[in-house]
Amino acid sequence: MALENSKEKNFSDWYAEVVQKSEMADYSSIQGCMVVRENAYGVWEAIQEAFNAMIKAIGHRNALFPLFIPKSLLTKEAEHFAGFTPEVAWVTRGGDTELSEPLAIRPTSETIMYESYAKWIHSHRDLPLLLNQWCTVVRWETKATKPFIRTREVPWQEGHTVHATKEEADAEVMLILGFYKKILEEYLAVPVLIGKKSDGEKFAGALYTTTCEALMPDGKALQSATSHNLGQNFAKAFGIRFKDKDETEQYAWQASWGMSTRVIGAMIMVHGDDKGVVIPPRVAPLKVVIIPIAYSKPEDAKKVAKYCEGIYAKLKAAGISVKLDDRDDKSAGWKYNEWELKGVPLRLEIGLKDIEKDAVMMVRRDTGQKNSVAKEGLEKSVEDELEKMQHQLFEKAKKSRDERISDAKDYGEFKKALEDKKGFVRMSFCDERECEETINKETTATVRLISFDDHKPKHKACGHCGKPAKVTAYFAKSY
Amino acid sequence: MALENSKEKNFSDWYAEVVQKSEMADYSSIQGCMVVRENAYGVWEAIQEAFNAMIKAIGHRNALFPLFIPKSLLTKEAEHFAGFTPEVAWVTRGGDTELSEPLAIRPTSETIMYESYAKWIHSHRDLPLLLNQWCTVVRWETKATKPFIRTREVPWQEGHTVHATKEEADAEVMLILGFYKKILEEYLAVPVLIGKKSDGEKFAGALYTTTCEALMPDGKALQSATSHNLGQNFAKAFGIRFKDKDETEQYAWQASWGMSTRVIGAMIMVHGDDKGVVIPPRVAPLKVVIIPIAYSKPEDAKKVAKYCEGIYAKLKAAGISVKLDDRDDKSAGWKYNEWELKGVPLRLEIGLKDIEKDAVMMVRRDTGQKNSVAKEGLEKSVEDELEKMQHQLFEKAKKSRDERISDAKDYGEFKKALEDKKGFVRMSFCDERECEETINKETTATVRLISFDDHKPKHKACGHCGKPAKVTAYFAKSY
Repeated sequence: MALENSKEKNFSDWYAEVVQKSEMADYSSIQGCMVVRENAYGVWEAIQEAFNAMIKAIGHRNALFPLFIPKSLLTKEAEHFAGFTPEVAWVTRGGDTELSEPLAIRPTSETIMYESYAKWIHSHRDLPLLLNQWCTVVRWETKATKPFIRTREVPWQEGHTVHATKEEADAEVMLILGFYKKILEEYLAVPVLIGKKSDGEKFAGALYTTTCEALMPDGKALQSATSHNLGQNFAKAFGIRFKDKDETEQYAWQASWGMSTRVIGAMIMVHGDDKGVVIPPRVAPLKVVIIPIAYSKPEDAKKVAKYCEGIYAKLKAAGISVKLDDRDDKSAGWKYNEWELKGVPLRLEIGLKDIEKDAVMMVRRDTGQKNSVAKEGLEKSVEDELEKMQHQLFEKAKKSRDERISDAKDYGEFKKALEDKKGFVRMSFCDERECEETINKETTATVRLISFDDHKPKHKACGHCGKPAKVTAYFAKSY
Repeated sequence: MALENSKEKNFSDWYAEVVQKSEMADYSSIQGCMVVRENAYGVWEAIQEAFNAMIKAIGHRNALFPLFIPKSLLTKEAEHFAGFTPEVAWVTRGGDTELSEPLAIRPTSETIMYESYAKWIHSHRDLPLLLNQWCTVVRWETKATKPFIRTREVPWQEGHTVHATKEEADAEVMLILGFYKKILEEYLAVPVLIGKKSDGEKFAGALYTTTCEALMPDGKALQSATSHNLGQNFAKAFGIRFKDKDETEQYAWQASWGMSTRVIGAMIMVHGDDKGVVIPPRVAPLKVVIIPIAYSKPEDAKKVAKYCEGIYAKLKAAGISVKLDDRDDKSAGWKYNEWELKGVPLRLEIGLKDIEKDAVMMVRRDTGQKNSVAKEGLEKSVEDELEKMQHQLFEKAKKSRDERISDAKDYGEFKKALEDKKGFVRMSFCDERECEETINKETTATVRLISFDDHKPKHKACGHCGKPAKVTAYFAKSY
């Protein structure tokens, strides 16, 4: 059961191994498609619950549009089609019959949804339209796949909203980006930088794209969620028009935004260790596991079993997700390893000595720290420790990420920082496509984001080409 | 906005119209695929929450397996493949490349899941394995489609469990059937009969199938959820073996069970009326709508608005899903019609007279009954009324269903009852395939279920062929 690979020494193999052994994901017989196993799906359900609460509180609702998109519909917005067509999976046969028109499996749902939106929207009173769906999308990747990080079928949510003005669409984009940051930082404990994508990296068909970028231990950035202002591009292609208050006919403004199970990959990479995955308490499907110490004397074993059942009932009654692992064919040590591998935040070890003290031994998954905790008030002690662990996981990850953000004033510094620090390099930048492409060709790094908050560049000249700098950009290698 | 068709006179057109106008579903440009709109998806989310709670409480967990099934995998269990292959949608191209092996879009996931199960299960300690997934399946129907009732893409849940013995699989089948009955009767307020399917109607590859059958207003039965004991058929085809306590190698026993958005169709058909859909309170995404009466005097309008906001805050604080419809460009009457169409269980009308009495006018969606209810304690009055409505919807539907169950001792009575009563006909039956096929050919009715509870037939001879009766069967025409 133990891991053969070390996170430090052999990151990529460690990831492949830990994902499978911790029962987060498994490979299937379809190349590039994975099974999201129960341990990871439980994390996804916690994310769904949290994100649904956020978006529903401000009027969004969930719906479900068809899996299929007729080819003619997919081609309606030219830039969008060009962006997605190389990686579309096509259904060409139903039963024994060849279809008259091939159907794409949705790579994303703009086109199939906006066909309906055009039917539904007539007046400014129909706006804003605020829909989201949870589904899977398919992109027939030719790059090497990696569970959660890059797969051919991707579970995600996609929000698609329609607004009367550009300003309202702008506000939606930023609102949702804030929710994504919250999910990543406050639930998955993964720190992210937020900003705008360069023109070369934006969503096919969008006016602009905003992004949450996390940093993985191997120095690669991971695009974790994106939120786009689509402008009026799709509205014009699909005829989404409304009669405004002044009775004039207008094209609508649109936003779309998505976050996938990729964020679970980020969580595993950032917090996992050589014992297995570490699941932050707020998204852990199982938060506490109770393990009775085995005794050979039946009366001792009985005493421990009874005490453990009481602790289990106590925590369960308090609404804490808890499991009592009372299998009698495994040693306590074997169980410790198994639940560490699966990332359960807290372990309670209980033996005769603990019972004598009316206590339990509480062990933290992330630090291994042991504390004897009184039975009385245990619910609160457990909840406090879970909260503490949640915060400490984030603080530790943030410190590590922050240490890997470097500043470069010129290309020499840039290349050195990229190699030495293995992280983000911040540089004043001309924001021109050609310059970005040259940097990419020479270093494999790309512009991960253009900063919102220090938009005005520090230096007057682009650190690479010397032309006037327009923005502050964060570069990194990426997944 | 009003419905053009009458439920009584023109049931089929009424259904098509009400589904669309109430924003439960819409047609898409792919024939046979529908958009599940926000009003229906909210019902589905309520079902998901309730069903997840039931299955998780006894150890089931959710996961997600791939959408695709390689052709070679789908063919592994011969009876299963023969049953599904005529209606499989095939992906043959990825990007610009022809696939070397066509991939089926899952019509159901036995084959793709059991390939993994064979890898995961080694010992009796790995059992039971209790997984479920929420996803959509695709069956390329050639029959006429109908929103929720029969579509090419179907949102559903499918549970797939593995057990050490036939008895444990039997118990699982019945446990889940009980959950389905609960969802249908206690949440959707749709009464169902439960029983076993005849051999001709069972799931392709199963040992036996159990079913929940509802009765629609047009006299047709609707198969609403099914739970199968798969025996060892798939275990043998996929090599799902385990080492038992006595160290012998055994094939596992399996169960699978599914419920789809079809149950939302049943809910609409059973409770809807000529004003629109009626959503039972426990699954209604929006339970209460507050509508202020309009006044021309600004101070009156202000007074009403303020009072309404107070009521809204009061109900919201109590955790009741409520909306204040304060649009100023629609009359109160227009709003009544809209929310009736969409099926919101309770409406609160508020005008100056209500304010004088420190009260609100509460109107039930199903009966139209109006009651002046005190502002003090309104939360409880609303909750009580919602519960009362939930029960009364079910009781009314059950009475109507019960009136359409007839007994027939011979084929003459059978045919008469089928035409006159438009419902279930109960008859002692030989349970032979040939006899069932003759009845079907002559009357279009099929065996909807074989009763569990009065399994011993009332008459010695089959009501149709006169051979010895083995079971009590419920026949009906069906969707």
